[in-house]
Amino acid sequence: MTVRKVVAFGGGHGLSASLRALRHCVPELDLDITAVVTVGDDGGSSGRLRAERGGLPPGDLRQALVALAGDHPATRRSAGLFQHRFAAAAVAADAGGPAAATDALAGHAVGNLVLCGLMELLGDPVAALDHAGAMLGAVGRVLPMSRQPVGIEARVRGADAAHPDEVRTVRGQHQVAVTSGRVESLRLTPAAPAACAEAVAAVSEADWLIFGPGSWYTSVLPHLLVPGLADAIVSSPARRLVTLNLVAEKETLGLSLADHLATLHRYLSELKVDVVLADSRAVGDPEAVERAAESLGARLFLAPVAVTDGTPRHDPAALGAALVPVLGADR
Amino acid sequence: MTVRKVVAFGGGHGLSASLRALRHCVPELDLDITAVVTVGDDGGSSGRLRAERGGLPPGDLRQALVALAGDHPATRRSAGLFQHRFAAAAVAADAGGPAAATDALAGHAVGNLVLCGLMELLGDPVAALDHAGAMLGAVGRVLPMSRQPVGIEARVRGADAAHPDEVRTVRGQHQVAVTSGRVESLRLTPAAPAACAEAVAAVSEADWLIFGPGSWYTSVLPHLLVPGLADAIVSSPARRLVTLNLVAEKETLGLSLADHLATLHRYLSELKVDVVLADSRAVGDPEAVERAAESLGARLFLAPVAVTDGTPRHDPAALGAALVPVLGADR
Repeated sequence: MTVRKVVAFGGGHGLSASLRALRHCVPELDLDITAVVTVGDDGGSSGRLRAERGGLPPGDLRQALVALAGDHPATRRSAGLFQHRFAAAAVAADAGGPAAATDALAGHAVGNLVLCGLMELLGDPVAALDHAGAMLGAVGRVLPMSRQPVGIEARVRGADAAHPDEVRTVRGQHQVAVTSGRVESLRLTPAAPAACAEAVAAVSEADWLIFGPGSWYTSVLPHLLVPGLADAIVSSPARRLVTLNLVAEKETLGLSLADHLATLHRYLSELKVDVVLADSRAVGDPEAVERAAESLGARLFLAPVAVTDGTPRHDPAALGAALVPVLGADR
Repeated sequence: MTVRKVVAFGGGHGLSASLRALRHCVPELDLDITAVVTVGDDGGSSGRLRAERGGLPPGDLRQALVALAGDHPATRRSAGLFQHRFAAAAVAADAGGPAAATDALAGHAVGNLVLCGLMELLGDPVAALDHAGAMLGAVGRVLPMSRQPVGIEARVRGADAAHPDEVRTVRGQHQVAVTSGRVESLRLTPAAPAACAEAVAAVSEADWLIFGPGSWYTSVLPHLLVPGLADAIVSSPARRLVTLNLVAEKETLGLSLADHLATLHRYLSELKVDVVLADSRAVGDPEAVERAAESLGARLFLAPVAVTDGTPRHDPAALGAALVPVLGADR
C-alpha cells in the first residue's frame, strides 16, 4: 500500500474529530498523519498555564495527542490520564481556605501539566510533543503551528448588543470564540509569528492537507495567518481538502457554509482547494456551497458525516468512511 | 538462573539507593524486585498534595519508581519528567501577584502530579503505581505499605533546646525528621493502619527482605508499626538483611549503628535478621555493631559501600557488588 502523508490543521474538538476520522481510514489506507495545532488558546487550564508559566498553551496539543493515542490498553489508560481533569478537591473545600491557595490543581488536565513539564524539561515544544506522543503510543505526530504562543484579535461588529453597529477589537482566542458580534477581521499578535520548521517540512512533503472542521476564526484560519506556514501551504505539491462544519458556532453566527469557504480566500488568496467535504444534511443550499467551492478550484463532496443523535458533531467512523475514497483517489 | 524475590522497605533517598544497588546485581543475579514505601510524608510537594487533595503522599513512591525506571532512552526521559520540579515561574514573578495564586505549580514534581492524577482516575493507589511503573518501563514493582496515608508522631526529649529534659510530642514525618531532640518513642496515626494486601503477599513470597538504608524513624521503622506487614515480615520464610546508614541523621543524632539495630528489636521484638551490611569505614566500633547484629541473629558483613567523594551516600555500584554474594548465597 502506498503511504499517504496527511497534514491536518486545526485546534481543539474539530481537529480531534478530523484525526479520529483519519484513524478510521487506516485499515484501508496507509496514512502518515501529522497534526498542526493552533497555539492561541488563552482560556481555562491552558490559559492559566500560559499566563503563569509562559510557553505554549497545552490544551489543544493534548487533545490532538489523545486523538492519536495508540489502541493498546496501557496507552489508552495513559490517554485517560492525560484527559483527567483535577476537580476541586473535597479536602480543600472542607478546609474552607481561599480556593486559589488551597486548590492549586483544580481545573488542570493532567496532560496539560505533563506537556508543560516536558516543554520546560526538554526546552523545546517539538521535542516535548514527540516524547508525549511516544508516551501515548501515538499513531502520528503532533506539531504546533509556531513555537511561540500567539494572541488572536478580531474586529467585531456589535460585540456589545446595545451598540449593534459599533466595531470593537476583541482580544484573546476565548473572547473571540464567544463573541456575540460579527467578526469583520482577524489577526494574530505578533502579526507574523515564525512557523514551526517541522510543520513547514511536513506540509512541503504532504500528499494531502486537511483544513477543518473546527472553530473557523480561532482554530482553522490562524494557520493561514502564519506567513511561513501559509507559503508552505500554497507551494506544497499536496492536494487540499476542506471539511466544513455542521453548524455555525457562536463566533461564526450569520456565516453560511459558502461564507466559510470565502474566508479562506480572503485570508490566503492564493489558496487552491481540491475537495470540499460537507455533510449532506448540513448543507442547506448545495448550489451556493458548490459555487463557493468551485471559486477555490474545488469540487464539492457530500456525505452523511454527522453523528445520528442530532447533535452537531462529526462521527469519526462516518467521516472516515467519507474520507477513504477522497484520500485514496489517484490524482 | 534462579529468580530471587527481593522486597526492599524504605522511604525516600535511602530506598532509592537500595533499589539502584539491586539493579546493579542484575547481571549476576535474576532478581524480582518489589519496593514497599512508607506513606507518612507530609512535607513539600507531597505534603501539599496530601493536604489539598487527600490520597497518598506521592513523593517517596515517585522516587522508588524512578529508581526502577527502565534503561531505554524514552523511559529515562520519562523518569526525568517525573523528577522535573516546576520552579517559581518567571512570568508569575513578573506579574507581581500573590505567589500562591499566580504560581500554583511551583515546587511540585511532575511525577507527583501524575501519580496524584492516576490515583484519582483509577481509584486505587496500587493500580496507579502499576500503571506509572509501566509508563517508566520499571524493572520492579512499587507498592505503598498501606493504601491509607499515615501520620508519624514521636515523643522527643529536648526538642526545645531551652528545655533539654522536657519530653514533647512532635507530629508529622517532616517535623520528626528535622527534630533536634532525641526520639524516645515513635507511633503512627492511626496506630494500626491496614497493610497493603499486595505488599503482604510480596513479603510472604519473598526470598529476601531488605531494610534500610534510610531515615531510621521516618522511613525504616514505620513498616514495622503496620501490624499486618509486621506479621508478614516475621512469618515470611525469607531471609532478612539490614543495610545500615553511613552517618546518623538529624532524627537519629546520638544513636550509634548498634543502637539503630536495637530499635528494630524494640519495635518488632520477634524480628530475626540474617545479615547486617555496613560500610567498613562508617562502623566506628565493629565489635559493638557485631554484638548488636548477633542479638538479632545476624552476622555482620562489612564492605566499602559509600561513594568515594566523602559525602555520606551509598554508591549503588559498590552496594550492589556487596549485595551479590549475600543475596546469591545458598541457605
